[in-house]
Amino acid sequence: MLLGSGNVATQLGLALLKAGHKVDQVYSRHYESARALALKLRSVPVGSLDDLSMEADFYILATRDDAAEKVIRKLAVRRKKEGGKNKLIVHTSGTLPLSLIKPASTSYGVLYPLQTLSKNKMIDFTQVPVCIEGNTKATEKQLKLLAGSVSKNVYVVPSDKRKVLHLAAVFACNFSNHMYSVAEKILKKNKLPFKILLPLIQETAERAKAGSPLQMQTGPAIRGDQSVMKEHLRMLHNDKMLAEIYRLMSRDIGEKPDILRNKS
Amino acid sequence: MLLGSGNVATQLGLALLKAGHKVDQVYSRHYESARALALKLRSVPVGSLDDLSMEADFYILATRDDAAEKVIRKLAVRRKKEGGKNKLIVHTSGTLPLSLIKPASTSYGVLYPLQTLSKNKMIDFTQVPVCIEGNTKATEKQLKLLAGSVSKNVYVVPSDKRKVLHLAAVFACNFSNHMYSVAEKILKKNKLPFKILLPLIQETAERAKAGSPLQMQTGPAIRGDQSVMKEHLRMLHNDKMLAEIYRLMSRDIGEKPDILRNKS
Repeated sequence: MLLGSGNVATQLGLALLKAGHKVDQVYSRHYESARALALKLRSVPVGSLDDLSMEADFYILATRDDAAEKVIRKLAVRRKKEGGKNKLIVHTSGTLPLSLIKPASTSYGVLYPLQTLSKNKMIDFTQVPVCIEGNTKATEKQLKLLAGSVSKNVYVVPSDKRKVLHLAAVFACNFSNHMYSVAEKILKKNKLPFKILLPLIQETAERAKAGSPLQMQTGPAIRGDQSVMKEHLRMLHNDKMLAEIYRLMSRDIGEKPDILRNKS
Repeated sequence: MLLGSGNVATQLGLALLKAGHKVDQVYSRHYESARALALKLRSVPVGSLDDLSMEADFYILATRDDAAEKVIRKLAVRRKKEGGKNKLIVHTSGTLPLSLIKPASTSYGVLYPLQTLSKNKMIDFTQVPVCIEGNTKATEKQLKLLAGSVSKNVYVVPSDKRKVLHLAAVFACNFSNHMYSVAEKILKKNKLPFKILLPLIQETAERAKAGSPLQMQTGPAIRGDQSVMKEHLRMLHNDKMLAEIYRLMSRDIGEKPDILRNKS
């Protein structure tokens, strides 16, 4: 069972299908979204938790965190009424604690894919690092099998560490992608093609493999090149938000140990 | 002649050497830096502009912007005294205008490599996009030859567009690399290996090739997932600077058109 129809639900669902699992139902409170994903997964869409079968082997909760608690509460109520608290329920959130699911089952865990996933951008899921956590050793073993069927990189990670990983991932992925977006916006405004930055973006990511990004830092802020920074802020004077981001980032980069500065 | 001994000077110098050029002298006001680079380039270090020969075919100014103007002024004075204003002088800055060099020569231009370069990280310079600009058509032609000898991707870009490219590059490269650094810092503090984020970083950069980064944005801010963002800010409460970066970035990401939001 897949609860959710967003980016994670879509890519995880496709990976499960590919690994030979059967997804009986896809739930989303937006029925149309459930339907669209169910079509891809040869599954059945449901728009209400009341229509969810309680007979599946495992339930994967891939809604946004905001909605997860509500879904769990609903599942807990149905379990109580209908019995059978022993079905495996996992969530896929980087931030929510394992314990959240406790009311709904005696067997629960987390299956968190540490990767940026989009509905329409296909990915080789076997290469995605998957962090798992189970409420018991038996559940952990079960989850290792489940996660291992879709990915080659399975890590057992407790809730507190997973939360840290997620926070770090927001910086390394979501915020760095936003920096690409800002660059795109600046270029577009000046009728320049974003494409010209691609070698730079690739090399920057490539260098992260080679060593500490802190030591790989280049640019005006780490050089302390005041005249460049002043000119850039002048160019951004019409966009307060970008100017503020520029200032804050440069300040944070500049506060690095002197030894990392490149003098000329 | 190479003036400067930093990241750009080093990688450009190595590329020139590889392409069969001879670098007669390497100037840096830090003699030891000049010496270190001269050794790599089988060249002669000079620590004072008074010792610079005025007889070379071209002079490449790869100091930081802060220092460039002073160097140009000095060159202009020597030219005036010693005659011969027709030697090609170029700077390598993304931000400085072409006109800066005017006092020092009748033949001047810009050769700006749009790539992140470090002294000790080797790079295939033939793949680096190089933006050139010359004060006359003849100089532009000369520069095309020079730049074309080290790179396959040479673009003629006027000063105002080059400045925009540089600003965009600071966001796409320097700031995204800083986001990797922040992630590294967060992981280190929690004894987690940075390596686990590498697939995520690679995929994020890879996705920039596939389309607009704006449309590729994922994460709590674009989802509008308040509970995750709240928890992340709680985790960052001991680091004001990072909390401020988190807040500002999330706010800017969240201000995207509603159509880009992923609902579940």
